[in-house]
Amino acid sequence: MTRQELIENIKRKRSFLCVGLDTDLRKIPEHLMRTENPMLTFNRAIIDATAGSCVAYKPNVAFYESMGAFGVQVLEHTVAYIREQYPDQFIIIDGKRGDIGNTGMHYARSSYEYLKADALTVAPYMGQDSVKPFLEYKDKWVVLLALTSNQGASDFQLTKNEEGDFFFEQVLKTSSQWSDDEHMMYVVGATQAEYLQRVRNIVPNHFLLVPGIGAQGGDFDQLIEHGMTPECGLLVNSSRGILYADSSEHFASAAANEAENLRRKMETALIKQGII
Amino acid sequence: MTRQELIENIKRKRSFLCVGLDTDLRKIPEHLMRTENPMLTFNRAIIDATAGSCVAYKPNVAFYESMGAFGVQVLEHTVAYIREQYPDQFIIIDGKRGDIGNTGMHYARSSYEYLKADALTVAPYMGQDSVKPFLEYKDKWVVLLALTSNQGASDFQLTKNEEGDFFFEQVLKTSSQWSDDEHMMYVVGATQAEYLQRVRNIVPNHFLLVPGIGAQGGDFDQLIEHGMTPECGLLVNSSRGILYADSSEHFASAAANEAENLRRKMETALIKQGII
Repeated sequence: MTRQELIENIKRKRSFLCVGLDTDLRKIPEHLMRTENPMLTFNRAIIDATAGSCVAYKPNVAFYESMGAFGVQVLEHTVAYIREQYPDQFIIIDGKRGDIGNTGMHYARSSYEYLKADALTVAPYMGQDSVKPFLEYKDKWVVLLALTSNQGASDFQLTKNEEGDFFFEQVLKTSSQWSDDEHMMYVVGATQAEYLQRVRNIVPNHFLLVPGIGAQGGDFDQLIEHGMTPECGLLVNSSRGILYADSSEHFASAAANEAENLRRKMETALIKQGII
Repeated sequence: MTRQELIENIKRKRSFLCVGLDTDLRKIPEHLMRTENPMLTFNRAIIDATAGSCVAYKPNVAFYESMGAFGVQVLEHTVAYIREQYPDQFIIIDGKRGDIGNTGMHYARSSYEYLKADALTVAPYMGQDSVKPFLEYKDKWVVLLALTSNQGASDFQLTKNEEGDFFFEQVLKTSSQWSDDEHMMYVVGATQAEYLQRVRNIVPNHFLLVPGIGAQGGDFDQLIEHGMTPECGLLVNSSRGILYADSSEHFASAAANEAENLRRKMETALIKQGII
């Protein structure tokens, strides 16, 4: 999917919601455990329930890989289901991959050719030649880790280099030279005004993938104020809040409600910022 | 496997060779392509041919993942084959993973419980809470990326922080506080004396996993001089040089020769350093 198509989808659906398919077998509603393939049944139901409210899906590979080859097959079927039923969805494989040349090429093939995803999350530590294999695909995207939302972000990302930049700023500065805003996005988990401004000073137009934040809280308003661009420039992810909104037989309608509530909040922001 | 067991295996086999199972279907000898499962047939033959000369195997997940669920199954069967036939081998899953708490736990389960590997390579960018889930397993190991051997290492790993340390030194200093040398190793690809000395100044006793270097060249001698500890402290990996030493029906005996040549060179180093 191209950048322009993504922006058009956001405007048309009045949403920049990404649904994180972090499907944990131990959290799937009881009654689904009697079906032949509980994970896939659950995923399909969640996708059907939320596709009208979101523009992207992001399965996290770890949840599938931990079930071995069977889990990988569930991932393949899940992505294929989205591709067939909802071809306007942007699909991000959240694998946080990264390896040198020849090896990275195999990861790229796995996500882009085999799964036919639009994007893959990639870790920056090994530098340009570990990201390059992913950038050689047209209309495909690298979503590079920049500033993550976990506590461990302070260990390295928020330390300073000899120029006085935070390390995540160095990652943004260096990596934004490798490609353009048509092929790269960044994972930015922080919602503090200071960090968002620092990010936007370096990459004013790149899309940011923002891990789940409370859509009702001050975090969301800060994100809109300091992170949104005239073309939106944001994909906000929600996983557990949608997936496990209800553990009964009504899990799908609860997920639909949760996703639609988030979409409405996003619609308001898009209107307020004059984007739609 | 414990550190002590690994050291004993190194002394007994007079080798610190790790064979990298980066099995590329397009490089497998022609005649094997007629077998039911060429990748697995190839891997088993390579393992049988080299197990006497090495102490560790390191399959790189990318090569298997790029073939989808089938490839993941080949990886599972390969690891199971090593476990059953050669239980004294240390198995490193080279996935360069890393994700926060809940998600990281799933990767840990995938490598340690499902595959029953001894170790997993992990990327440090997300900090302590992305590495911690892997450290909660007894007798299992994290092999953290520190200084990689690719060109892109200069993008971030070889830049300096505000204290004047290289970033890879900061990674070593910070991460070595998270656990001990019984549970962590480091990927160190550089063989320049300067960098090896910097590494050993910070982690004098940790095992280093060193990606393939020419065993006949000056690189190997530098590595021994500046990287080896009184307990060896090194695992040196070779992948393509062994796997694709010959593309004919004699590929296995060529691989055996290549591995044995490396082992002899290592034996000489172990004797010279008074370890055996």
